[in-house]
Amino acid sequence: MTQAKMMHLCGFLSSGPVVHSHAVWRNPHHETKFLTLSHYAEVARTLERGYFDFLFFPDRLAIGDRFGGSPEIGLKHADQDATRLDPVPILGALAAVTKHLGLGATRSTSYDAPYNLAREFATLDHLSDGRAAWNVVTSMNDAEALNFGDALHLGHAERYDRADEFMEVVFKLWDSWQEDALILDRQNGIYADPSKVHYVDYKGKWFKSRGPLNVPRSPQGRPIIIQAGASGRGKEFAARWSDVIFGLQPGVEQMRKFSADIRSALDAQGRPRSAAKVLMAIMPFVGHSRSEAQDKRDLHDSLIDPIVGLSTLGGHINEDFSTMPLDASISSLESQGTRGNLAALKSIGGGKSITLREAGQIYGRGVMCPRFVGTGADIAQEMIEIFKSDVADGFIVSPAFVPDAFQDFVDLVVPELQQRGYFRTAYNDRTLRNRLNS
Amino acid sequence: MTQAKMMHLCGFLSSGPVVHSHAVWRNPHHETKFLTLSHYAEVARTLERGYFDFLFFPDRLAIGDRFGGSPEIGLKHADQDATRLDPVPILGALAAVTKHLGLGATRSTSYDAPYNLAREFATLDHLSDGRAAWNVVTSMNDAEALNFGDALHLGHAERYDRADEFMEVVFKLWDSWQEDALILDRQNGIYADPSKVHYVDYKGKWFKSRGPLNVPRSPQGRPIIIQAGASGRGKEFAARWSDVIFGLQPGVEQMRKFSADIRSALDAQGRPRSAAKVLMAIMPFVGHSRSEAQDKRDLHDSLIDPIVGLSTLGGHINEDFSTMPLDASISSLESQGTRGNLAALKSIGGGKSITLREAGQIYGRGVMCPRFVGTGADIAQEMIEIFKSDVADGFIVSPAFVPDAFQDFVDLVVPELQQRGYFRTAYNDRTLRNRLNS
Repeated sequence: MTQAKMMHLCGFLSSGPVVHSHAVWRNPHHETKFLTLSHYAEVARTLERGYFDFLFFPDRLAIGDRFGGSPEIGLKHADQDATRLDPVPILGALAAVTKHLGLGATRSTSYDAPYNLAREFATLDHLSDGRAAWNVVTSMNDAEALNFGDALHLGHAERYDRADEFMEVVFKLWDSWQEDALILDRQNGIYADPSKVHYVDYKGKWFKSRGPLNVPRSPQGRPIIIQAGASGRGKEFAARWSDVIFGLQPGVEQMRKFSADIRSALDAQGRPRSAAKVLMAIMPFVGHSRSEAQDKRDLHDSLIDPIVGLSTLGGHINEDFSTMPLDASISSLESQGTRGNLAALKSIGGGKSITLREAGQIYGRGVMCPRFVGTGADIAQEMIEIFKSDVADGFIVSPAFVPDAFQDFVDLVVPELQQRGYFRTAYNDRTLRNRLNS
Repeated sequence: MTQAKMMHLCGFLSSGPVVHSHAVWRNPHHETKFLTLSHYAEVARTLERGYFDFLFFPDRLAIGDRFGGSPEIGLKHADQDATRLDPVPILGALAAVTKHLGLGATRSTSYDAPYNLAREFATLDHLSDGRAAWNVVTSMNDAEALNFGDALHLGHAERYDRADEFMEVVFKLWDSWQEDALILDRQNGIYADPSKVHYVDYKGKWFKSRGPLNVPRSPQGRPIIIQAGASGRGKEFAARWSDVIFGLQPGVEQMRKFSADIRSALDAQGRPRSAAKVLMAIMPFVGHSRSEAQDKRDLHDSLIDPIVGLSTLGGHINEDFSTMPLDASISSLESQGTRGNLAALKSIGGGKSITLREAGQIYGRGVMCPRFVGTGADIAQEMIEIFKSDVADGFIVSPAFVPDAFQDFVDLVVPELQQRGYFRTAYNDRTLRNRLNS
């Protein structure tokens, strides 16, 4: 019964009304109180009850207005970018109400200073005793640029070059205190050994920072680095820096290709394939019976509006769909924002291209998350097959309704995974890094 | 017994080993675990038990190295800038472990983007249900500038001009959602009323931001604004923007002058004197007897090293004291950093100028916090006299040891203030703003 290798599980949650599905806040069973701390605490405690590796928050730095050049549709119906609280203070709160769950948030290399970022994640790592994770994004659209005073967003390649430099700076800052630099001899008033705390003197094309960081080395040394880059350049970046790589692919074949590409990219960086865990997003609809699960899915899907999906998609790929006919094919679209998502979307129809309406429906109901619908045993089995075929080291669970979908998953799927020997039955590692590597 | 006007109390705590006193972490009774969440939670719960208005964290964005052009002294003995965790994630954690206490942190207008800052404090205000406060600083020294890639720090006047603009942007962003913009009609999928969410289109000399903020209006509308500017330009800035003004003055006469200046500055801005509460820093040493209190002070002071005080002071006023004789007078010093602190320090000797050694001892043991030493009744009486003379609307308690000094204060001073009718015996207001105005 014992497995050498265990699956890793992550919960995906936005700091707003919408996650991948735009119907999340329309939960018919009860209000989804995404402006309150107790909402986030409830999800985190549920995931911890289910022994999840970590929880992580995507982010965006603007209300979207690509659809019709106005935020009207996105705000009226809540697309993905209608509202996002800052996820970092939320992680601070969750550090207080959990003991083991890893805590991840997205920050952008385009709109943050490396020193500030290094400090906030080192702090989270201290407060959580080694559970912090950073999902690195380069930011993708004009609305974000305009909130920060930049008239035009950087091009795709330049953004990643700058991001590489950003990572170099923050890694150096995290390393600026040696592990044994703190002395804390209260009696003699010796706080630290200055010879073990170093200037970093970073001078790059985009960034300069002298250091040292004013936070002593944190329990994990640095946070777990998560990345979801799905373009060629994005995968190269992810393979260079990440501990966890997040894939959002519509089916097993696309997952297999994504995973193979990542592994080649890891090879190219001289890193072993075990150095970065590949986790695939899924959206489960779990029932005590298959028909109950299908009913949950159908109820959820009845709340989806393809226009809202297109509003989100337009923000992601920096495109205005408002003047295009809904029956047009998506085959000729090109992305100025994230690239991987559009490619995945195009792959959905098989040989035949899907329409804008279909793309909006798919994007609105859960971006490209494959939907696993069935009993706990069904879904566990589907996950195990993917896991055993070595396509993924684990999964990212994207909820259809919050907190309901997480509760269902923890109550019905996790025990099946545990019983089959593919998932932990206790937390045995102090830090998230140790857990991911165990 | 009932008082029309109640005193306001704030706890002052750094996210590191040192607060105003550099001996804080040398607490002889037990370890001060400033790298752990439980340390901050313990202080916050203590202050909440004592019905404090709020807790607030100063901040700095660099390890100091003015003393001898090296961080050696500051790191070896822990001056004020040896270590600072990021206070914002700490406030997130404290929002989870308290229900009433206001939660304030320092952020700099020089090294943060207005959009990010507006978002993080709006988020804290939501998470805490209306308890967030922002202590605005402009940052003061070269070490900070170097961590952010700027070879030279802006001049004093320019820094405040830029800060004014920063405040204009963030206030507009906080106002970008009208109070009733959120609709949350789950059944019909109507999230918000787009006509009540506005672009801000800010274009200044230093900052541009289009908005709107991607966080709905928070319970307080915006956080409480705290400022401690003590120079002329600083007081003007404080009088324009602040809800709370923090004074650090060595004695009652200096407090009176500070307070009068602030009130003139408020007049000049057309704001009533009640619009900004003036809180004065004090460092209490409380005992069950006067001799016990004096013993606590003497023990504390025996742990102070004037060199460490000069290391901190040098960072604050951007001056290297390492080559100056300790017996030299401070009368000819001029500040390139904070100005008010140096002026206050010069005023301490009365007619006669103090020496560098004396300045270092004073700065090291508690900057210029006046020390109130005695029983709970003694200290309460001293505070009430200042309060009654209308010099202060309340006090900021700076601890000599953490958490001990806060526990002593809550156990011994607060009941005396309450008994005399000068301090609340329950929390009756939902938001910090209401509490400060009640």
